[in-house]
Amino acid sequence: MTNDEIRPVYFLSDSTGITAETLGNTLLTQFPANNFDRITVPFITTAEQARTVVGTIDKLVATGPRPIVFSTAVSSDIRQAIATCQGIIVDLIGTHVGQLEEALGSPASAEPGRAHGLGNAERYQSRMAAVEYAMEHDDGQSLRALEKAQVILVAPSRCGKTPTTMYLALQHGIFAANFPLVDEDFQREGLPRPLRPFVEKCFGLSSNPLRLSQIRTERRRGSPYASLRQCGFELRSAEQLYVSHRIPYLNSATVSVEEMAATILQRMNLKH
Amino acid sequence: MTNDEIRPVYFLSDSTGITAETLGNTLLTQFPANNFDRITVPFITTAEQARTVVGTIDKLVATGPRPIVFSTAVSSDIRQAIATCQGIIVDLIGTHVGQLEEALGSPASAEPGRAHGLGNAERYQSRMAAVEYAMEHDDGQSLRALEKAQVILVAPSRCGKTPTTMYLALQHGIFAANFPLVDEDFQREGLPRPLRPFVEKCFGLSSNPLRLSQIRTERRRGSPYASLRQCGFELRSAEQLYVSHRIPYLNSATVSVEEMAATILQRMNLKH
Repeated sequence: MTNDEIRPVYFLSDSTGITAETLGNTLLTQFPANNFDRITVPFITTAEQARTVVGTIDKLVATGPRPIVFSTAVSSDIRQAIATCQGIIVDLIGTHVGQLEEALGSPASAEPGRAHGLGNAERYQSRMAAVEYAMEHDDGQSLRALEKAQVILVAPSRCGKTPTTMYLALQHGIFAANFPLVDEDFQREGLPRPLRPFVEKCFGLSSNPLRLSQIRTERRRGSPYASLRQCGFELRSAEQLYVSHRIPYLNSATVSVEEMAATILQRMNLKH
Repeated sequence: MTNDEIRPVYFLSDSTGITAETLGNTLLTQFPANNFDRITVPFITTAEQARTVVGTIDKLVATGPRPIVFSTAVSSDIRQAIATCQGIIVDLIGTHVGQLEEALGSPASAEPGRAHGLGNAERYQSRMAAVEYAMEHDDGQSLRALEKAQVILVAPSRCGKTPTTMYLALQHGIFAANFPLVDEDFQREGLPRPLRPFVEKCFGLSSNPLRLSQIRTERRRGSPYASLRQCGFELRSAEQLYVSHRIPYLNSATVSVEEMAATILQRMNLKH
């Protein structure tokens, strides 16, 4: 086959499918020349359901490129049903469970994956509380509760504060607030007053003037706010502020929220 | 060793560590009798950095239970450095890449994992736009833009609309709005007016009266709003509304946002 053909990729799971998608997609990024059509089938809880999906996939084997099947099913009857599939089966659990059983000297529980269930109820509740906190403290709203924040993201408008805050909350249960830097913050001396007691918790975001101007233009075309000159001024002023108060910062122009979150956790030494 | 001992678990990555944490934690849930102390080391980009981490882990081998090391490093020199570690090495990439190389008939790129980078810029921008949309349309704010929503989560207060909306946006790039059901919606006939043109896009959330009353009590102790009676009334009324308008729904009391999101994607046939 040529690489122009579209190869189906199935993510099969007895739970949400998140784990299968995550590792499966990581592996697929190693084969950038291929075109893939991704289908997630979550909540396969019986061998019969598994056989139905296998039937669908086997029909595709006859007519096009052999589908790739990433599976994270845990129960042995479901895994056996999936193993009969004529696609390229990549068993993401079975391969490693055996190794861990041997090393830990105890058998795996073979319960369906609960990694993305309620699991540890306390940890789950704290993640939900963090989301609520992030919603309530977005963009400098209700500054009173900054003392509860584990980290305060500081940046000019549209540098990625909101999605990064939300990601830290939802994925990692981190209480993250954010604080927008505006012109008057750059005209005054020192840190903006609400941040002064919490400088140790501040993490700055910056961007590139051109990129920031593009993003702001989508929102308010032709405004002074979106001008390259204003964006350059704000970013220079913000970086000066970060440096003079020893606030760690990163440029958000070329990294994803996931990468920003991982960097912030590491630099701020936050335990999640 | 006994299972009371705390075994260190390392997630090593040349990128964010998200993939290593996701599959690693899924595997660990199969061994519930053990106590684990989790440490993520992201952004290992040189063999020297890898050797430093290996040195830290090898010191632990001498003094306690053998650490488990989940690795998603892609480049061969980093993988070789990690392979020298005396912990229990679980190589989540290498194991499967070989299988895919053979099946696809092409070599892996061996570029560091970009699954959680900007990757597909268009897809990334659409996720960020979805987060912005979710922030702006939380809790029935600005109903005007409901026609842009791919799904509208409908539920009484505190049934999990907001975090589920945010998860759908941030992880899956789904444009999700949400609409709170209040007493006056139950007193009138039919669907709330703003939802009527969009009944096909509605998905309902329910809960258990006791659970909902507990959650509301945390927010407003002793209020009529938090009473078991009021919670029971709202949930019964909401479920009647869902059933009579054929709106699919689920009970959020015992499932996680990840499970809700996966169910909603599947039931509403949303492509992400």
